[in-house]
Amino acid sequence: MKPMLSIVKIGGNIIENDVELAQFLTLFSELPGTKILVHGGGKKATAIGERLGIRSTLVQGRRITDAKSLEVAVMVYGGMVNKKIVASLQAHSCNAIGLSGADAGSIRSVKRPVREIDFGFVGDVDHVNTQSLTTLLQAGLVPVFCALTHDGKGQLLNTNADTIASELAIALSKEFTTTLYYCFEKPGVLKDVQQDDSVITHIDKEIYHRLLKEKSIADGMLPKLENCFHALDNGVEKVCVGNTRMLHPDHHLYTTITL
Amino acid sequence: MKPMLSIVKIGGNIIENDVELAQFLTLFSELPGTKILVHGGGKKATAIGERLGIRSTLVQGRRITDAKSLEVAVMVYGGMVNKKIVASLQAHSCNAIGLSGADAGSIRSVKRPVREIDFGFVGDVDHVNTQSLTTLLQAGLVPVFCALTHDGKGQLLNTNADTIASELAIALSKEFTTTLYYCFEKPGVLKDVQQDDSVITHIDKEIYHRLLKEKSIADGMLPKLENCFHALDNGVEKVCVGNTRMLHPDHHLYTTITL
Repeated sequence: MKPMLSIVKIGGNIIENDVELAQFLTLFSELPGTKILVHGGGKKATAIGERLGIRSTLVQGRRITDAKSLEVAVMVYGGMVNKKIVASLQAHSCNAIGLSGADAGSIRSVKRPVREIDFGFVGDVDHVNTQSLTTLLQAGLVPVFCALTHDGKGQLLNTNADTIASELAIALSKEFTTTLYYCFEKPGVLKDVQQDDSVITHIDKEIYHRLLKEKSIADGMLPKLENCFHALDNGVEKVCVGNTRMLHPDHHLYTTITL
Repeated sequence: MKPMLSIVKIGGNIIENDVELAQFLTLFSELPGTKILVHGGGKKATAIGERLGIRSTLVQGRRITDAKSLEVAVMVYGGMVNKKIVASLQAHSCNAIGLSGADAGSIRSVKRPVREIDFGFVGDVDHVNTQSLTTLLQAGLVPVFCALTHDGKGQLLNTNADTIASELAIALSKEFTTTLYYCFEKPGVLKDVQQDDSVITHIDKEIYHRLLKEKSIADGMLPKLENCFHALDNGVEKVCVGNTRMLHPDHHLYTTITL
């Protein structure tokens, strides 16, 4: 039987709230077994960028990562946010090690080809180095990933944190029975987006297709669910979607997604 | 016989010069055997801090690290500089992994006690986690340290890069035969600070005391040499002082320091 691995992704809303981040890091450090944390960046990079006189560029409503924005992302996500999380986890006796995809050659990506939009220094994950990661995990270390990868030719690339989490989960599911946790601001996938108590506790493919037909999934949730099923279709055991409290052993109100 | 380990420290002058940094990283990646890189920060943090409206505070001519300066140091040293170096080394097939002292609990320090001056968030190295580091080194990884440590209670601390290099070298000399390389702007310890060709190629304690008596060591060099002998007195095999070219196998003009 393969050992268990938990991969937890937190978004910007948690990182920007010091109290919530502290509560989350306590829960995460208490999560038993082998684990990985992936964090997004949120608005901190935008705020620091603006103070540095670097404005984020939008083309057709999509954010573009030019050279200066990338530098800010590397400073804020790879430096400030990542190292603070690592230092906090260490204080909780969780042996965290902060990584970008460049570190230990762990995640290589390809600069997104220019089609309708040139996204700039944005990478699509190409290869996860499971050997490097397995070595770190077997040494009892807890990798903490920021949303940066590299192209193997010296270029760092901004990469979606949800994708990093799912690609890590897929690659490592050959060696581990992997559960992927997506923490966001809602308590789970909701029947009624206005009602936090309308959590759908279990979704499988059949239920998913029914919900799609009924058009009862909020637009923002659709790419997230697509990403979840992509992970499940590629070897991940289970995906859980909810707020950070779902890491608490006594909290059961969140959405579990299986094939 | 213990395996060999090279620990190379580079200063701000190299980091600020893109051409020199690229040349150095090529040399470093070609250095055979187990190795660690330690980098200082230089003036980049000051420059970014000023753009963010954060001015560095000096008390009695000494730089103070307040909370905001620390945040800038974490962004610039731990983020921008460290990740760029790691991505470049990876492009040279050198399996680099960027670390602060918080990562893998590798270097714990104590916030410098307030005596005449309150230096703020500055740490003096207290403990090097040789177990964590040996695991990484044995896995073929090349740690790249920025000049940040942690107190184990969640606080990151600014720490002198020369000291990080020597404390790593001392701690790891129990497991490795350790050579410490200090790269700076001069080709070595000079007889005449105005003459770059006046390199003293070998210094031992006897020669050191004679040079001290003759007052022929430049003031800036004294604390560096004290630090070198402190390392040698505590198990380090050899310390080399010179410019980055000393890593080239055909370059022999630098200062070797032994007991």
